Amino acid sequence: MPLSDITVIDLSRMLAGPFCSALLGDMGAHVIKVEPPAGDPLRMQGAGREGFSWYYAQINRNKRSIVLDLYQEQGKAVLVDLLADADVLLENYRPGVLAKMGFTKERLDEINPRLVVTSINGFGSTGPYVDRPAFDFIAQAMSGFMSLQGEPGRPPLRSGLPLSDMLAGMYACIGTLAALSGRHHLGHGQAVETSLTNGLVSLFSYASAGYFAQGAPPAKTGNDHPIVAPYGLFKASDGEIAVAPSTETMVRKFLAALGLEALLDQPDYADNAARMANRAALNALVEAITTDRSVDEWIAILNQAGVPCGKVMDMAGVFADPQILAQEMVIDVDHPGHGSVRMTGFPVKLSDTPAQIHRPAPDLGADGTHILRELGYDDDKIATLRRDGAVGNDGSGDDAT
Amino acid sequence: MPLSDITVIDLSRMLAGPFCSALLGDMGAHVIKVEPPAGDPLRMQGAGREGFSWYYAQINRNKRSIVLDLYQEQGKAVLVDLLADADVLLENYRPGVLAKMGFTKERLDEINPRLVVTSINGFGSTGPYVDRPAFDFIAQAMSGFMSLQGEPGRPPLRSGLPLSDMLAGMYACIGTLAALSGRHHLGHGQAVETSLTNGLVSLFSYASAGYFAQGAPPAKTGNDHPIVAPYGLFKASDGEIAVAPSTETMVRKFLAALGLEALLDQPDYADNAARMANRAALNALVEAITTDRSVDEWIAILNQAGVPCGKVMDMAGVFADPQILAQEMVIDVDHPGHGSVRMTGFPVKLSDTPAQIHRPAPDLGADGTHILRELGYDDDKIATLRRDGAVGNDGSGDDAT
Repeated sequence: MPLSDITVIDLSRMLAGPFCSALLGDMGAHVIKVEPPAGDPLRMQGAGREGFSWYYAQINRNKRSIVLDLYQEQGKAVLVDLLADADVLLENYRPGVLAKMGFTKERLDEINPRLVVTSINGFGSTGPYVDRPAFDFIAQAMSGFMSLQGEPGRPPLRSGLPLSDMLAGMYACIGTLAALSGRHHLGHGQAVETSLTNGLVSLFSYASAGYFAQGAPPAKTGNDHPIVAPYGLFKASDGEIAVAPSTETMVRKFLAALGLEALLDQPDYADNAARMANRAALNALVEAITTDRSVDEWIAILNQAGVPCGKVMDMAGVFADPQILAQEMVIDVDHPGHGSVRMTGFPVKLSDTPAQIHRPAPDLGADGTHILRELGYDDDKIATLRRDGAVGNDGSGDDAT
Repeated sequence: MPLSDITVIDLSRMLAGPFCSALLGDMGAHVIKVEPPAGDPLRMQGAGREGFSWYYAQINRNKRSIVLDLYQEQGKAVLVDLLADADVLLENYRPGVLAKMGFTKERLDEINPRLVVTSINGFGSTGPYVDRPAFDFIAQAMSGFMSLQGEPGRPPLRSGLPLSDMLAGMYACIGTLAALSGRHHLGHGQAVETSLTNGLVSLFSYASAGYFAQGAPPAKTGNDHPIVAPYGLFKASDGEIAVAPSTETMVRKFLAALGLEALLDQPDYADNAARMANRAALNALVEAITTDRSVDEWIAILNQAGVPCGKVMDMAGVFADPQILAQEMVIDVDHPGHGSVRMTGFPVKLSDTPAQIHRPAPDLGADGTHILRELGYDDDKIATLRRDGAVGNDGSGDDAT
């Protein structure tokens, strides 16, 4: 595996941080999830079966778990030993909290100068909002992202996905891998930080470029393309088709497939500017035809004609789609004690060392004893740590206290 | 810079691939953008000033440009020489096109066994849709992403951002960096692939987990949280505020700040299940209060009370926000010949080797001669390549043919 020489100590909770370490783990990194005695709150969230969260299982695959009470000096001492041997520390406390726990930049550098310390927070660790609580929805609102989403005349709209969390996890992964790469020639680790808000802002591409160049915020256009017509969703007899003819050639192919090619000879539809001005009328002419046949018929006809098009799939559709299955984007993972858990696959395919599920998401503290033995702790020391509550129990099995 | 020992030969066009190489370039990689004689079509797209696309400038910073005619054997021979010395080849042709050009996996391995070959496409290189044309909008529809976005009773909705392109660029970056990291112990490069569709599917998190565990596709909930109330956008006197009280404690703080704490003693609002059942009535009670004051007043009051909240910013708001400016998410880059171009910054902060703009986006073919000299080509050879059209002109300046 490409990252099988990398060890990640993951103090993060909930979504953004654990998604980062899941990406690293899928590519072979050894991830040790350090949890407080109550566990990562994500264990209690999202849908699942028989009290076991499938959401937790998805986001925490390929990790081991140890419970440490970091309010105790003995718990902190275990963390120091873990960090001394590790490559990455990942955390998503609010800015300043890690230092207050005693893990300042200087102290971390003393423990392990090669450590990459990756932090995820809401707004970054400089600036006036540094102490504000952040949640995905707030980042979607404050980043400007929502202002670009929605139908004209309707409110700005959040994404139905926790997009800022997922992006922050991906950017934390990118920064971590770059810092690890740099370590080969720089000789030392460094701090890497990203935030829920910055990640969203970085994706604005043509929207921010347009604003910077022209000074006017872009308008919400729903499913319509801001500068191309026809384009968008069109009703078929049994659902909707998405059609994206992005060039004049493709517009001609699209209209020809509908038997509407003659429209291009009329001044109202002769070029893109005219079609934009008359979009509602044009869309009505298009839908008068598209409603005559089913989604599947139109997808076959338009693909045959070389027009980019697709079904608007829901979850049931996409996870039964032969393409998605061929891409191994749906996988079943055996979780001893919890049955087989279905989850999404890894979206990057590496030819020689493909991503693997090498272990299911751990029960709380399940790997504590193993991890402490790997640090060279003897049974007496482990028993003392457990007795004092600095290390939590294994959460299941005979070993539980 | 962390990636200053990495050279990327970038054959990709438009958005997803060039965004990947921009991320790598921002962290110090040497990116050589290999363009066809007509140039990357993105040069002609998006808003700009005086014929220079600021969208192109944003996505192609930190790169050099050489024009190669890859339909000519001489042009291909230059590419072979570039690849022999490089670390990464990045491309976003449809699956199979690179091999048809003569660059099969075997040939690439012969040229440079340490090369990481990163490909981005619409649906992946296996499966029934492998030959279909793909665009961002089609990937948003077919991935199931749109089914999660929008208001109840309204159509499924695309994101206003080209999200599938941006995600694919980020995942290509993640896969490339992991393969480069793995090269240190594996000793060779490998092929890395991601797709517009797979990237979106990988972000479904609680939505896909819920579907897999319970078998019912999630419903669109607009700005409402699917399982928490009150939560969402609330009207103030001069705009809207986003409020995300994700725990009972925060709900109490939120209602107390409005003077509505007594509602929690009424059976209709006593717990989250009751509040979900009476969400419309509760939201009306909340808005009867929130409309009395301005957005800024409520943001101050609610932050004081420890309730996660924020303004719904548009582009004008976010790019004037002191937090966004403190985070250096707006930068001005001097483009000789095109003035100063404003663009978004890099969302990952590296403490010791921060991302930098070390060069503006290149004019078409502007670095051709320098790049060929770095390969050891003498002036006669360069002149011959230019005369035969295998290498395009420098696009500007005295050197232009």
